Order: sequence, then structure tokens, then C-alpha cells
Amino acid sequence: MDQKSKGRLIKLSADVIASASVVGDAEHRGPLGDRFDLHDPDDRFGQSTWEKAESEMQRIALSIALKKSSLPLSSIGALYAGDLLNQCVGSAYGLLSFDIPYFGLYGACSTSAEGIILAAMGVDAKYFRYAAAVTSSHNCSAERQYRTPIEYGGQRPPSAQWTVTGAGAFILGRCGISPSPLARITGVMPGTVIDKGISDANNMGAAMAPAALDTLIKYFSSADASPNDFDLILTGDLGRVGSDILTDLALAEGLDIVAVHGDCGSMIYDGLDRPDVNSGGSGCGCSASVMASHILPRIQSGEYRRVLFLATGAMMSPSSVQQGLSIPAIAHLIELESVGLGE
Amino acid sequence: MDQKSKGRLIKLSADVIASASVVGDAEHRGPLGDRFDLHDPDDRFGQSTWEKAESEMQRIALSIALKKSSLPLSSIGALYAGDLLNQCVGSAYGLLSFDIPYFGLYGACSTSAEGIILAAMGVDAKYFRYAAAVTSSHNCSAERQYRTPIEYGGQRPPSAQWTVTGAGAFILGRCGISPSPLARITGVMPGTVIDKGISDANNMGAAMAPAALDTLIKYFSSADASPNDFDLILTGDLGRVGSDILTDLALAEGLDIVAVHGDCGSMIYDGLDRPDVNSGGSGCGCSASVMASHILPRIQSGEYRRVLFLATGAMMSPSSVQQGLSIPAIAHLIELESVGLGE
Repeated sequence: MDQKSKGRLIKLSADVIASASVVGDAEHRGPLGDRFDLHDPDDRFGQSTWEKAESEMQRIALSIALKKSSLPLSSIGALYAGDLLNQCVGSAYGLLSFDIPYFGLYGACSTSAEGIILAAMGVDAKYFRYAAAVTSSHNCSAERQYRTPIEYGGQRPPSAQWTVTGAGAFILGRCGISPSPLARITGVMPGTVIDKGISDANNMGAAMAPAALDTLIKYFSSADASPNDFDLILTGDLGRVGSDILTDLALAEGLDIVAVHGDCGSMIYDGLDRPDVNSGGSGCGCSASVMASHILPRIQSGEYRRVLFLATGAMMSPSSVQQGLSIPAIAHLIELESVGLGE
Repeated sequence: MDQKSKGRLIKLSADVIASASVVGDAEHRGPLGDRFDLHDPDDRFGQSTWEKAESEMQRIALSIALKKSSLPLSSIGALYAGDLLNQCVGSAYGLLSFDIPYFGLYGACSTSAEGIILAAMGVDAKYFRYAAAVTSSHNCSAERQYRTPIEYGGQRPPSAQWTVTGAGAFILGRCGISPSPLARITGVMPGTVIDKGISDANNMGAAMAPAALDTLIKYFSSADASPNDFDLILTGDLGRVGSDILTDLALAEGLDIVAVHGDCGSMIYDGLDRPDVNSGGSGCGCSASVMASHILPRIQSGEYRRVLFLATGAMMSPSSVQQGLSIPAIAHLIELESVGLGE
């Protein structure tokens, strides 16, 4: 805990006005299935390629979130978007029809929080009245790009994760601008890139857990809070294997988060009769869809009063894996609380 | 000019404290060769792969910029970085040794301005005292990823561009924090994604010129200025073909920028005895290295008093090109002026 001055918590205020998610069939059949706004039983979303299907998910997710917000398109000052496809084309094509200033992002699966952090800064600093963050992943476009074709049926170890077919969109506005926001963002902490030498792309949880730990330790060194002050400390997609590693590592550092820790990647397929999801979900769409449709409504309802959200990313590429390099990882943190429920 | 309310100019104040560039051999042999801080005659920068060489260029560029700024590493609040490699691994690996909060970006060749815009917002809004923006490209890692191996010797049409081997790093600070900044950023305008149907990856200039036009028209609709108020309107990497398209399109819209327009991609190889650079340079490292080492010093000296910088990006991927899709493009704009020279 010797890095107080670095990676410090940035206190700010921004409201999450609306959110929406779009998922595929497996995600719909999982335990959170009825929370998502829209799903497509064949994962194609009416498109001729998996890549176009992913772009279409982003377009639909942002359209639904905009509709929920009742805001005109012209009120959105900026889009912060990203995905896992090479050159982030999922976002470039998916959001092409929205004539809104666009910031392309890449933070692997941490992009969901990266976008929300930058959008929150944009509205808190009054550069924009409203801004949107959108991220996506598609299992089939990710399989085509990173791995062997699904039809090949390659064996995957228990630590492997299953890329979520999903997109999440978030509309943020200045603090207090909406009478009933889903949640208020009270602080953000962008993560630093951490590489502890894990080079197994089938064990991303192990690569990402130290990054989540690094951000958590820096957070609890900066913030006047302890884990028990939160109803939920939610990681993005460590999966079951990575979650166990994080809670163990945190305990060794004197941080006991076991009672309040949850992980979007573990939750989204929990109990699903699909052994191939193994350790759990991953991908830019995992934490984005779970936050948008499962967590934020529970913050709005007051079921969760204070939540810490840490989206984790494993920043490898197919060529870096083929060249045997270890996997740099990152975890971006967002402090959220429920608004206007009083005691 | 019917879009005044969208893509509006954001007025802010941030100073460019220091900048640095690292380039390859062809760039060193070009007309700006003696401006760059460091070059490597074999483009390898002591590394075993082209991808590692690109990462090393980022590491060196940021190290030199930090040294020039005389700031300790711990004073830099955030890094905004990106490159063209799949999953932006050039930045993830290149900046791993800097323990600074990291925002990964992807805007194709527009990433240089995207990073500077977000860093300027970060310091102007007082989230950070200082922030850094870093981008890179490497001709050989780009050829491996996007095209055929160089050894194959494929014919390239006159509109094709040559990916610059280069990296640029910029240290930004709050307005007035340094006694002698290179330049002051007085406004920014993030671009919107534009797709005019160009699907030829060997004619990126044609794909990007309409995006540059879109941002320019929105800028001159929002700002109280005309092209002649600037000593230079500098585009990132339209190349000669794209630059001619932009100046023609602008003239048709009533904007005459011919006398003040320059293009980093046209300048970097101008007069170089290498016919294969064709229309000019491209890549994240093109505008970054030219801005860092050629333009900013001239703003500091007062040779240029007011400059508009528009970094352009062609957001295609190898798979989107193979699938026959047209190329979405974007252009981010930055207003710069010289500081402290009086009349």
C-alpha cells in the first residue's frame, strides 16, 4: 500500500440516467436471462456475418438506452465506445448511424468501465450535458478472431472463459439532471497496466486478478472506506477461477472482500447447463450487460446502496499469445451509490 | 452547415509542456529527419520482433518527453495511448513499465489527437495536474497485420500510403503550470464517424478526406474564425491524394484552405527517393511524430501563432476489408496557439 500518490481516487459526480443490454441465446438462458432488454435466439441479429451482428447489438443497445432516457439524440455530447474486434470495428460500424462525437476505446474487457469513467468525467467537467458509453463482444466473432472455429470443437481447460455475446449501453448525465437516475457515480479510479507473467490465454482470470487487486489496494489506500462499506464489490469477468485468486490475494493483503464480492463473469452463466462455459463469461459485453440490466436496477431500487465496480481486462492479442508473451491486464474502478431514497 | 449543435467546439485550456518522437530509417532520411529525437537505422530498436520494436518506440518516446519536461513520473496523472496493432498491444506492452493510470484508445491514425484531446480535458478539468498522450505505428508490424509481407513485393497503387515507423509522446499540463510551454490548446472538437462508401484500403485518403471536411465545417460553424486566421491547418495523414480531395471538397463548401493547408503524411516523406511511399505516410506514428518534433517547436518559437490540427483515422480492419465493407473514418480537431510571445 505504498502507492497512495499514484492511481489515486478521483472524486466526481455523474448520474447514470439509463442503460440497456442486448444478449445472445446462452446469456438469455442463464440466470439473469429475463433482465436483459433484448436477445436473439440465433445470435445473428439479422446480419450476414458475426462481426455485423456484433455491430448491430451495439446499435440496438444504444437505441434502447436512448429511448429509455427519453433524450433526443442531439443531446448526447459524446460516445465512448469499444469492443474486442481487431481495430474496434464493432463500434465503428455499430455506432456509425449516430451523428455524435466519438471516442474509440480499447481496454479489453475493462472497456465497459473505461467508457463509463471517461463519460462521467466528460459530464462532471461540464464538457457535455449527457454522454454515452457502449461496449460489446460476440462469442462467434471472438472465436473467429482469437481462437479456432467453434466447429473444430477444441478442448478447453476448466480455467477457460466463454466470450459473452452481449452489448451494454449507458447514458450518463450531469449530477441531478434527471429526477430518477439509476445510480450516482461518486468516484472513479483508472487502473494501471499490470503483468504478473501469466501467458496462458486459457487462464485470463489469473492474469486479471492481480490487476483487480492492484486497483482495490490503491482504492482502499485512497478512500475513506473498507470493503464492508459496500453492498457489493463487483468484478467484471474474472470468472470463478480468477475470483478465487482475487479473494485469496486480497486476504493475504489484509483485505477481506469474500462476503461482498461478486463477478459478472461468474454470475451470467451460473447454473447454465453448458459445461463449455467453464470458469465463466468474459468479453466487453459481459460486465456491460450485467451492469446495465442486473446491477443498476438494483442500485436504483435501493437493494444495493453502495457498489464498487471493477471491470477487468486481459490485453493480449492473438499475435502476442502466439509469440509467447505474458498477458498485461488492467482493472478500472467506479464507485456507485443509490440516489434519493433517503433512509 | 446545419449541424451547429452537434460536434461543437469545446473551449478549454491546457498546455503542451513537452513532446518527443522516435522514428525509423525512412522517416529519418525524409525532409524532417533531423527534427526527430531518436531513430534506429534498422527499425528494430534492439528488439526481436517488429511488434516489440513498436512497443519500445513508445517506451522511448515517453521517456524522452518526460526527461524534457523535467517532471517526475509520479506527477503524471494518466496515460492516454493507442496504436494500430490488434488489441492495441503496442501500447499495453510499451507503457507497462510506467506505473501510471492508463486509458487505452483506438481511433486508427486519429488516435494521436484523440489522446491529446482526452489528456487536455483531464488536466483542464483538474482531474490531473499533468497527463501524457502516446501513439505509435511501425511499418513492419502494420504490414504483417494488414497486408502481405514486405518481401512479397506486391504492387501498390499511387493512392496507397506507407505506414510510418514512428512514435510520438506529449506531456500536457494545466494552463500556465509551466513557464515555457510548447503550445497552448485552446479548444478541441472530437469528430464523428463518417462513411462515404470508399472500400479501397489502398485509398485511405479518399475515405478520410470527408471526415476531415465534416469536422472542419462543424468547426468553422462553431468557432468565430476563418481559415485565414490560422498559419496552418494541418491534417494527419491524408497523403497527397487525400489532401487534394479535402481541399477540393472544402472549396466546394465555400471553405478555401489551400493556402494554409499542410498534411503530416505528405510532409514526412516529401522528396524522399522512395517511390513506394506513394501518396505519403500514414499510421498513428505519422501525425504524432510530425506534431511532436516539427510543428510544436515552430509554435513555441512563434513561427506559427495559431494552428488547427486534425488527425484523421481510417477505421477499417483486415477482416472488414476482406468482407468488402466500406471504410468508416474520423477526424479529431485541436486548436493550438503560441504562448507568451506578446506581439
